[in-house]
Amino acid sequence: MVFYLIGLGLGSPEDVTVKGLQVIKSAAEVYLEAYTSILTCGKESLENFYGRSVVVADRDVVEQESDKLFQRARDEDVAFLVVGDPFGATTHSDLVLRAIEQNIPYKVIHNASIMNAVGCCGLQLYHFGETVSIVFWTDSWQPDSFCEKIDANRERGLHTLCLLDIKVKEQSIENLMKGRKVYEPPRYMTANEACTQLLSVIDSRDKEEKQSGFGKDTLCISLSRVGCDDQKIVAAPLKDMPDYELGPPLHSLIITGKLHPIEEEFLNQFKKP
Amino acid sequence: MVFYLIGLGLGSPEDVTVKGLQVIKSAAEVYLEAYTSILTCGKESLENFYGRSVVVADRDVVEQESDKLFQRARDEDVAFLVVGDPFGATTHSDLVLRAIEQNIPYKVIHNASIMNAVGCCGLQLYHFGETVSIVFWTDSWQPDSFCEKIDANRERGLHTLCLLDIKVKEQSIENLMKGRKVYEPPRYMTANEACTQLLSVIDSRDKEEKQSGFGKDTLCISLSRVGCDDQKIVAAPLKDMPDYELGPPLHSLIITGKLHPIEEEFLNQFKKP
Repeated sequence: MVFYLIGLGLGSPEDVTVKGLQVIKSAAEVYLEAYTSILTCGKESLENFYGRSVVVADRDVVEQESDKLFQRARDEDVAFLVVGDPFGATTHSDLVLRAIEQNIPYKVIHNASIMNAVGCCGLQLYHFGETVSIVFWTDSWQPDSFCEKIDANRERGLHTLCLLDIKVKEQSIENLMKGRKVYEPPRYMTANEACTQLLSVIDSRDKEEKQSGFGKDTLCISLSRVGCDDQKIVAAPLKDMPDYELGPPLHSLIITGKLHPIEEEFLNQFKKP
Repeated sequence: MVFYLIGLGLGSPEDVTVKGLQVIKSAAEVYLEAYTSILTCGKESLENFYGRSVVVADRDVVEQESDKLFQRARDEDVAFLVVGDPFGATTHSDLVLRAIEQNIPYKVIHNASIMNAVGCCGLQLYHFGETVSIVFWTDSWQPDSFCEKIDANRERGLHTLCLLDIKVKEQSIENLMKGRKVYEPPRYMTANEACTQLLSVIDSRDKEEKQSGFGKDTLCISLSRVGCDDQKIVAAPLKDMPDYELGPPLHSLIITGKLHPIEEEFLNQFKKP
């Protein structure tokens, strides 16, 4: 039969497509991917909405049980649900490659993802350059290579979507060393934290870099819970951004490039007085 | 009440989200945007699926009747349907700006668009640079500025999504001059046509440009009807692309940058023997 990858969209259970819901209702088994993203609405509300049970598939499950999953897909339809669109993260190409190896036909049911829904702030998607990821800094690891990419986009007048770090099923060093499968609560970077890291990169730049790259006055846009009823968008200079509270996750951040007049006008609704 | 912008996704009527469908069923009036994209499934199949009538809104309707539309949205919910996601084309920000001016609250119901669904070919979305548009050349107008953008993306190892021209409600010069509102049938550029234009740009480049830019052997990916049951994807060097038949519209094209091993492996399924 068919291995279905189904995008759930961004917010509530009702964001699934009608086509996706039809497959979910009739599939022999439904897995919910839970290692590259966070479902804002919770598994139970999905199960209530679908009227059926859903198996949460974290990285271990997918890696250890994918044979079982594909075995099942030989004779019956199996659905694999992904928050957003199924082709946002490498791991899903990986899963499709394994399906192909085993001669299991696959189908994709697309949905919105942050990669296109970010257009809701009024910036044109074709004025965006390369998307970057901003990861949590630690005392010993403070990567800032994404800043070059932001600068390279800005040199060409392009906006940059920054995806912010999500840590799911992390183990403390102590638990890891003792081999205890005890996990820390999930963490997600806020737009405020991302901006604080960006400001500290600016501080450490030398004079020449300061002139050519993005700066404290560069207009940024913070977005939270895009596609949900309580979505928030704030447009402000980078230096002011750490002051704005955007509430619960997920957050994203845009560093603007050159603004088109209509983009500029659209952003006015998101500026604070 | 609320002015809803609702994304229809990519292919069939069932690609609407459950949330979108709920609004469509209960709204006082439903408009279907028909000037920046082509609905592959036809208006009638939408009306059958929704169980209600839909007003086709071409550019004239939206420009001349937007006051009427917003007047209505003052007291009742009005839905404005857009193929793909509502924030793919400038014109929709424009419409939202007019709603804001008139103090009409608006809400967006997102869906997949080619901008994110293109990930189905296995190329990672965050390895894409700026998206370009390729327009139909005429005898007197053969713009090729998009080629610089493709080269700039490739310099940084990035892929380029090329959106291909759509001509809807065009008038012949004769009809235009005589003021006759007679329209030509819609036209859409095929991936083959786009590749033929790209090859002719390569031919006209000087030696230095030929070395630095994309070339006849650059791996390209043609996609047609992404998200539909009869979706087709072909991966081949640019020079071979005009030979492949991808069937009915819409088509898109990707010029690859640097390939990650998993991207390369994924693309194998789309290469012709």
